[in-house]
Amino acid sequence: MRVRNKPWAKDYMAEHTDQMVVEPEPLMGKWQSRFPKEQPLYVEIGTGKGQFIVEMAKAHPENNFIGIEIQMSVIAAALKKVVASGLTNIQLVHTDGEAINTFFAQGEVAGLYLNFSDPWPKTRHIKRRLTSPVFLAHYADVLPAGGSVQFKTDNRGLFEYSLGSLNNFGMVFDGVWLDLHAATDGVEDIQTEYEQKFSSKGPIYQVIAHFPEDK
Amino acid sequence: MRVRNKPWAKDYMAEHTDQMVVEPEPLMGKWQSRFPKEQPLYVEIGTGKGQFIVEMAKAHPENNFIGIEIQMSVIAAALKKVVASGLTNIQLVHTDGEAINTFFAQGEVAGLYLNFSDPWPKTRHIKRRLTSPVFLAHYADVLPAGGSVQFKTDNRGLFEYSLGSLNNFGMVFDGVWLDLHAATDGVEDIQTEYEQKFSSKGPIYQVIAHFPEDK
Ligand SMILES: C[S@@+](CC[C@H](N)C(=O)[O-])C[C@H]1O[C@@H](n2cnc3c(N)ncnc32)[C@H](O)[C@@H]1O
Ligand SMILES: C[S@@+](CC[C@H](N)C(=O)[O-])C[C@H]1O[C@@H](n2cnc3c(N)ncnc32)[C@H](O)[C@@H]1O
Repeated sequence: MRVRNKPWAKDYMAEHTDQMVVEPEPLMGKWQSRFPKEQPLYVEIGTGKGQFIVEMAKAHPENNFIGIEIQMSVIAAALKKVVASGLTNIQLVHTDGEAINTFFAQGEVAGLYLNFSDPWPKTRHIKRRLTSPVFLAHYADVLPAGGSVQFKTDNRGLFEYSLGSLNNFGMVFDGVWLDLHAATDGVEDIQTEYEQKFSSKGPIYQVIAHFPEDK
Repeated sequence: MRVRNKPWAKDYMAEHTDQMVVEPEPLMGKWQSRFPKEQPLYVEIGTGKGQFIVEMAKAHPENNFIGIEIQMSVIAAALKKVVASGLTNIQLVHTDGEAINTFFAQGEVAGLYLNFSDPWPKTRHIKRRLTSPVFLAHYADVLPAGGSVQFKTDNRGLFEYSLGSLNNFGMVFDGVWLDLHAATDGVEDIQTEYEQKFSSKGPIYQVIAHFPEDK
């Protein structure tokens, strides 16, 4: 939390409570009340500076979007983008995505996005990875039956781990891409800040998977 | 079957019936009788010219090995390698691997290898891929509970398909490698002819997966 260097962040967030949530628990089961239209709600965990979620909200006015980010200075930068966009189908939440099942009700989230999540390469940090079993269990708590998780990254080790972790958790793969930017199947790819920065250095990997109906 | 160009192949095979099987069905449940020692039996489908299976047999005298190949001229080349090796823990079978469950009994095969299988890129040929559901069902018929399939390839499209297919079939991933030659986990990698030829052109992918106990 590099908030010390960015004293403006806290103030800026306090000025925009219409698009920014810092205490999400009371909204459990009531998130649609934060949007003008009741429509499917998609959530990104680890939103960073917000390019992906803002572009998604722009491209998909038929859906609502929430970006969750744990670092205050980073989410403040995302908030600037949200405010500048003028979009009303997007909200940001400053919190730890691991606790997602403490502030979304089962089925309240239509789908989840994880983009270029921190790799946590050391074995002793496995449980911090956003695709580790503890996180997956919480995702299963908030998605409806058949609800999907879409994960992309440039990090080979994290992707190898994640394919195994999702599979071992019993998730069903809808698609796997081992070089997303070379894909010819017309899959939508709204780019993130990290994606633009690192895609020249190697392939972008992606998997879309859902929890089985009988979870 | 390019046997017309290689009339020596049929003759050569007929001269080496001690290491070469062309009619495998009568051996169902009795394959150990083809080896001096009764020990775990590993099978490769699509053996090609045999480098992998011969090197495996050399490296693992504690196991028996069988290479299955559908093309006569190709398996004849593999047979030459087997004969030259002097190894007794290896046999070759000239037949279609899809029929594997018509000549191995349940549990007779300890593990299966698929290396650089033909990609069959066209959608209408999906069922010819060695990782398609029909093949997987037959593999499940011959492996014991927990028995694994190890698949490597340089073909991105085939590997993307195969990860999905194995997952959707309910197989459990033991490991995924997205650049096998860069792996630092000490995984054994005995190279095939295709692997040596194509690994300079891009990454080698590998997955090891097993059927669930309650299949
Ligand atoms: C490598 S950055 C990628 C940012 C963005 N998704 C992109 O692709 O450009 C990962 C982000 O995830 C955030 N993050 C990591 N763990 C998190 C968690 N448990 N909850 C919420 N955000 C998290 C980090 O603070 C960081 O901003
Ligand atoms: C691309 S080559 C790879 C050969 C070898 N595994 C390697 O990595 O060097 C694929 C081989 O699989 C064989 N093959 C394809 N389908 C098969 C099947 N259904 N049963 C047995 N062999 C098959 C082909 O004849 C070919 O020799």
